[in-house]
Amino acid sequence: MIDRSPSPDADPLTASTLSRSWPSLSPDDRLHSFLRLPREEADDFFQSLPSADQGALLSALPRSDRKIAIRLLAPDDVADLLLTVPPAEQLSLLSLLDEPTRREVSALLAYAEDAAGGLMSPWFARVRPEATVDEAISYLKRQATGQLETLYYGYVLDAEQRLRGVLSLRQLMTTPGDRRVSDVMTTDVVAVNEDVDQEEVARLFAEHDLVAIPVVDGEGRMKGIVTADDIVDVVEEEATEDIQKLGGMQALDAPYLRTPLLRMLGKRAGWLSALFVGELLTATAMGHYEDEIARAVVLALFVPLIISSGGNSGSQATTLVIRAMSLGEVRLADFWRVTRRELASGLALGGILGALGFARVLLWEKLFGVYGPHHALIALTVAISLVGVVTWGTLAGALLPFLLRALRFDPASASAPFVATIVDVSGLVIYFSVAELLLRGLLL
Amino acid sequence: MIDRSPSPDADPLTASTLSRSWPSLSPDDRLHSFLRLPREEADDFFQSLPSADQGALLSALPRSDRKIAIRLLAPDDVADLLLTVPPAEQLSLLSLLDEPTRREVSALLAYAEDAAGGLMSPWFARVRPEATVDEAISYLKRQATGQLETLYYGYVLDAEQRLRGVLSLRQLMTTPGDRRVSDVMTTDVVAVNEDVDQEEVARLFAEHDLVAIPVVDGEGRMKGIVTADDIVDVVEEEATEDIQKLGGMQALDAPYLRTPLLRMLGKRAGWLSALFVGELLTATAMGHYEDEIARAVVLALFVPLIISSGGNSGSQATTLVIRAMSLGEVRLADFWRVTRRELASGLALGGILGALGFARVLLWEKLFGVYGPHHALIALTVAISLVGVVTWGTLAGALLPFLLRALRFDPASASAPFVATIVDVSGLVIYFSVAELLLRGLLL
Repeated sequence: MIDRSPSPDADPLTASTLSRSWPSLSPDDRLHSFLRLPREEADDFFQSLPSADQGALLSALPRSDRKIAIRLLAPDDVADLLLTVPPAEQLSLLSLLDEPTRREVSALLAYAEDAAGGLMSPWFARVRPEATVDEAISYLKRQATGQLETLYYGYVLDAEQRLRGVLSLRQLMTTPGDRRVSDVMTTDVVAVNEDVDQEEVARLFAEHDLVAIPVVDGEGRMKGIVTADDIVDVVEEEATEDIQKLGGMQALDAPYLRTPLLRMLGKRAGWLSALFVGELLTATAMGHYEDEIARAVVLALFVPLIISSGGNSGSQATTLVIRAMSLGEVRLADFWRVTRRELASGLALGGILGALGFARVLLWEKLFGVYGPHHALIALTVAISLVGVVTWGTLAGALLPFLLRALRFDPASASAPFVATIVDVSGLVIYFSVAELLLRGLLL
Repeated sequence: MIDRSPSPDADPLTASTLSRSWPSLSPDDRLHSFLRLPREEADDFFQSLPSADQGALLSALPRSDRKIAIRLLAPDDVADLLLTVPPAEQLSLLSLLDEPTRREVSALLAYAEDAAGGLMSPWFARVRPEATVDEAISYLKRQATGQLETLYYGYVLDAEQRLRGVLSLRQLMTTPGDRRVSDVMTTDVVAVNEDVDQEEVARLFAEHDLVAIPVVDGEGRMKGIVTADDIVDVVEEEATEDIQKLGGMQALDAPYLRTPLLRMLGKRAGWLSALFVGELLTATAMGHYEDEIARAVVLALFVPLIISSGGNSGSQATTLVIRAMSLGEVRLADFWRVTRRELASGLALGGILGALGFARVLLWEKLFGVYGPHHALIALTVAISLVGVVTWGTLAGALLPFLLRALRFDPASASAPFVATIVDVSGLVIYFSVAELLLRGLLL
């Protein structure tokens, strides 16, 4: 049966309908629905679940089913699953595996979860360089009967397990059978070290259009492969993390609706309180200008407009620079280039908003006569402040990620709300300084 | 040579060093550096470039080289490239192709760029259901000598070109050669319709861990395949678009440093001006409370604190909901669930910030004696307003994406700055209403 997704719901007992209702089901309902699936559909369905759901389901299954289910998974998937369950449970699940798989899973668990080594599958097709193409094909056939889930390339390893070259199945199929592997293999192999960060691995996939990348250790010995389907998940996860940090919180590490409320509040309350404490400085800054506000209440009216314009322009700049850094488009060395670009952008955008603000004050004066005899100077104060605040907001938003990266923090912590908070406080100082300069002796 | 990226720069004339300096080169420098590359490296390098760069480079090359270069690319890559050059250039480039490729490229150009049909490669390995496994292998070998860049599965098509099943190369290699294809093929194929959006295709890849998905038309006839390496690019691009919209601007559609300044300003100035016009309402709202501010200047001091807290909590909520919608975790039907969650979150977060604000006012009064005899009521006004503004900001941020989606707008337009603008205006009304209620007859 061909699943032309998205398709309407059909029978309530198939894997595809269950996967649609899955996110909204309670743990008990999940277990019961899962046990009602036909055997073969259940196996496929289990393999398609996220690691955390596999772990939860596995822990709830009867012991006999647990053994069957966990053995469906490749070692890298088992390792991912084990990272989602409590340590005591880990040992009990490990004991369900056969000895060679247990060793492979244990080796994988030793890698950092977000390094190439933590993503890779230890199963790949090995070929000896001195073999003929025919020998390589019959050797690959023997390996393919085992647990080799993915077979896209044959990797040519020497006696020390060092990666010497690669042969695609297409090359194998179209090369005369008596040629030597070492004579026909591709030696210009894109490989990654096991410690390389998964974001870097994702970049290589996107750049080279590969379906699998070999992972090697410091001595060039091949340890496994990372396949493109794993990278799709990684890219989604990394983007979600960046987006959530940009929104001014810690990354949730789990789908929104599946994150317990208290845990989600924990991820949000910390940053929100920190930003609040930062914003308290606005009350201090405003307090510093209390006399000026008392003398010219009209000044207070434009405070939200001016600081939010700085915050919005800072949000644009920080979003652009952080994403470009994540994608590797902008590096530390681009500091001056970005500074020039954003200085120009800030002045231009500030000029536009300044002109709009100037027009607004004069128009309202004309229509409603609300700003008194010094309305032209008030309009000029608002306009000049906007140019200053927007330019400063844009620069601060663009350069804060560089500062954070140079200090070895995550640039994505320069969230839009963080930049807005910095700009709010300094924006007030800019605004009231311009006002003092232009209106002293008149309104102030 | 094995490229264990990231590795230090070596020789200035290799493809890998050129690809590192590439983003910062001018069009002229790009052409000259490219022409200095050794022939074979130049071919690989050209194929690894983004479509827009391929297009620009191709237009700059001498005509003889253009023909060689464009013929290196698969039809789907040529189609992507053509979308980046002016229409007149398109025709001249199309004329460089051989007739069958030109027909395939023209067919691909007819698809929307972001639908499965626009992503797919028309080259895939066909197998007849009535063939034996041995016949299928020798048929695949003949196809593989042609332009079949990717060979992961053999697709089993009937006489009407309808997709009946699929055989992995691994299955072919390990099945006795005299079995019939129709007896050993997998019939439970995950396929997509040619009109399905690329985000949905990416979800299927992540869910089913595939390296290629077949694309079929409305009658189930197979049209091509989408491979996982194309999807990595799609996922990156979609995330970048969402992130830039969340930052309060239009998506750039090109890397930050390669977007001309004026074009980037256009993408930013529109939203920034729209937000500014929205923020002008804060000046109107503040004007409405001008008398209250004149009587109690102390009220003005907390305006930035209160409205920015609403903006920050709204930014968190809208970021979470928009990303969850993009990933398909939250649908329109989850409206009430999200409402309940965010109402609870808003009250809890508002309670925390309200308590912090209350403590701040009382502490400053104790330390500096700045808020006068009614400081307790001022503290209460600030605290209650914070609970109200944060709850409202959280709800508005979470529900605006639902509203936009229901109205068939892009939910990602509910950017953090957009939500902050809405909350700024309404936050002022909440704050001054609470103040009037608590302080009337005392300060007001």
